[in-house]
Amino acid sequence: MGKTPDKLKIVAIGGGTGLPIMLEGSKTYSKHLTAVVTVTDSGRSSGVLREEFGILPPGDARNCLVALSETEEQERELYQLFQYRFDRGSLEGMSLGNLLMTALTDITGSFEQAIKRASKILNIRGKVLPSTLANTHICAELEDGTYVEEEFNVRAVGKSPIKDVFLKDDNADSPPEAIEEIHKADIIVIGPGSLYTSIITNLLVPDIRNAIRNSKATKIYICNIVTQPGQTDLYKVSHHVNAIIKYLGEGVLDYMIVNNNIPRKDILDKYQKEGAEVVLMDEDVYNLNINVKKADLVEDLSQKRILWEKQDLLRHDPDKLSDSICRVYANLPSLTVN
Amino acid sequence: MGKTPDKLKIVAIGGGTGLPIMLEGSKTYSKHLTAVVTVTDSGRSSGVLREEFGILPPGDARNCLVALSETEEQERELYQLFQYRFDRGSLEGMSLGNLLMTALTDITGSFEQAIKRASKILNIRGKVLPSTLANTHICAELEDGTYVEEEFNVRAVGKSPIKDVFLKDDNADSPPEAIEEIHKADIIVIGPGSLYTSIITNLLVPDIRNAIRNSKATKIYICNIVTQPGQTDLYKVSHHVNAIIKYLGEGVLDYMIVNNNIPRKDILDKYQKEGAEVVLMDEDVYNLNINVKKADLVEDLSQKRILWEKQDLLRHDPDKLSDSICRVYANLPSLTVN
Repeated sequence: MGKTPDKLKIVAIGGGTGLPIMLEGSKTYSKHLTAVVTVTDSGRSSGVLREEFGILPPGDARNCLVALSETEEQERELYQLFQYRFDRGSLEGMSLGNLLMTALTDITGSFEQAIKRASKILNIRGKVLPSTLANTHICAELEDGTYVEEEFNVRAVGKSPIKDVFLKDDNADSPPEAIEEIHKADIIVIGPGSLYTSIITNLLVPDIRNAIRNSKATKIYICNIVTQPGQTDLYKVSHHVNAIIKYLGEGVLDYMIVNNNIPRKDILDKYQKEGAEVVLMDEDVYNLNINVKKADLVEDLSQKRILWEKQDLLRHDPDKLSDSICRVYANLPSLTVN
Repeated sequence: MGKTPDKLKIVAIGGGTGLPIMLEGSKTYSKHLTAVVTVTDSGRSSGVLREEFGILPPGDARNCLVALSETEEQERELYQLFQYRFDRGSLEGMSLGNLLMTALTDITGSFEQAIKRASKILNIRGKVLPSTLANTHICAELEDGTYVEEEFNVRAVGKSPIKDVFLKDDNADSPPEAIEEIHKADIIVIGPGSLYTSIITNLLVPDIRNAIRNSKATKIYICNIVTQPGQTDLYKVSHHVNAIIKYLGEGVLDYMIVNNNIPRKDILDKYQKEGAEVVLMDEDVYNLNINVKKADLVEDLSQKRILWEKQDLLRHDPDKLSDSICRVYANLPSLTVN
């Protein structure tokens, strides 16, 4: 230990909107930041391009690139382009950034190189690597015995609870650079994000899972703030972390950080209408031999920004998140609301 | 006179593939280069975006931006993106650069600003301005009395010859900056390019036409090398220049430059199969009170590059073109093949 925060090698694993928030907070201090991002998305714009061009789905990686881009004027303008979404005509809903990633994949010859090229264009801090180079899908066995294929169906609302998830290609290989970064890391952060389709989907890649297990890094799981209909209905904290342990293996996680800033009732009511609830602490968490840290992780609503397309009322705060990770690593007390 | 080439203020007027060639040659010496470019295209990728987003057609301006971009690595990579065209799926034939221009128009609020933003991203030399800000179309009356609307139909092959062209919006206004650049210019170059749909369509904009008439610049018309089926079938040099004079007014053009490098028979045969022929000199040209300069303007086939999507066998050579313009301006003899 004893490294100053700027020297820490951090690998953040995930996807969706959670990983970009994590990156946004960490990039302000870490000079060695790597995002390992899922490429099993099959929805919307990414899904169309995936089907038509046979490329890896670019959406999750694109959001990470954008989160890591510097905010100089030139980059801000390119950033706007990468985040632009067409709102009418035959292109309605299509993300320009995803189209750019598709073109770059064609121009450079691989999705990995496309990310590198885009990283240069956006002048990003750190690096973004796909967790697998295989064009594969997440699949699930449900509690009622049915089987669903593709991210879009795994996260569908109203189906039977998820019993087990796996990749269609169970030998999906990883970019060696991702394995190397995991190996060299001081801290590996898993989450926050959609438990199965953004987080565990990365752990299903054998090389990634094994690299995390073998890494000497401090491994930290960040629990979600609210449940996600279709994936984690009724899940308490222990259900979340147990799902991670199921796919990562026992005795791998060192810490978990759990939000303890319970939001106002009016906000909770809004979530409840959509079938989501605050993820509650439960006693089972303490039987897992993982250091549990509570912290205020919720973004202040008064400073709410529209960063992503979905405007969540409750999201992790980039700065609080990265601050709590540094505190865990340095063995300092968390900043909590209680 | 007496200005060194780098000090010359050049305004090049046109569109299509001709104007970018002109810019490519001139940018190597001129530090003050302005492209005034048509926005009445209605074909392919530009046409779709025009219809669905109500924006000005971006294709011609995009090609000018690309021609003026510096060739540093960063810009070369952005350049590849601006020139990329999707080759399958629902996006087949769509130009990524046109999509970028569409997004930039939405982000910045106007097509003029979108060009400025793209100019910055591509780090271009000089500037690109649309000849009009109006969302209008070129229309034509044909010799057989029929009337056609939109560029796509005006340039269609097999129809009756064009008798007259006009804009649907005959009060189409111009960006003041275009008028100012024409006013300040030392040299105004008109052409080469599709006679009606890339060149004259700009002269149909009242402010542009009047500004050229009133400018003290040396005004040079560059005649096309080959005829274009549907627009200039059977046209000799005098027909070309007379069409320009018809819309620009008499006594405005100072010079015209005509290619005198007649290509090999096998190349001419290929063109003839498509209904195109070399534009031949005719005596009528000498009755027009315009200084006629002959020069070798044809790009050397041995150095042929694939610069644009259409791979022409006979195109103007960027360097020969700009060299001949400088020579005309400086009263030096042209470099000819005879």
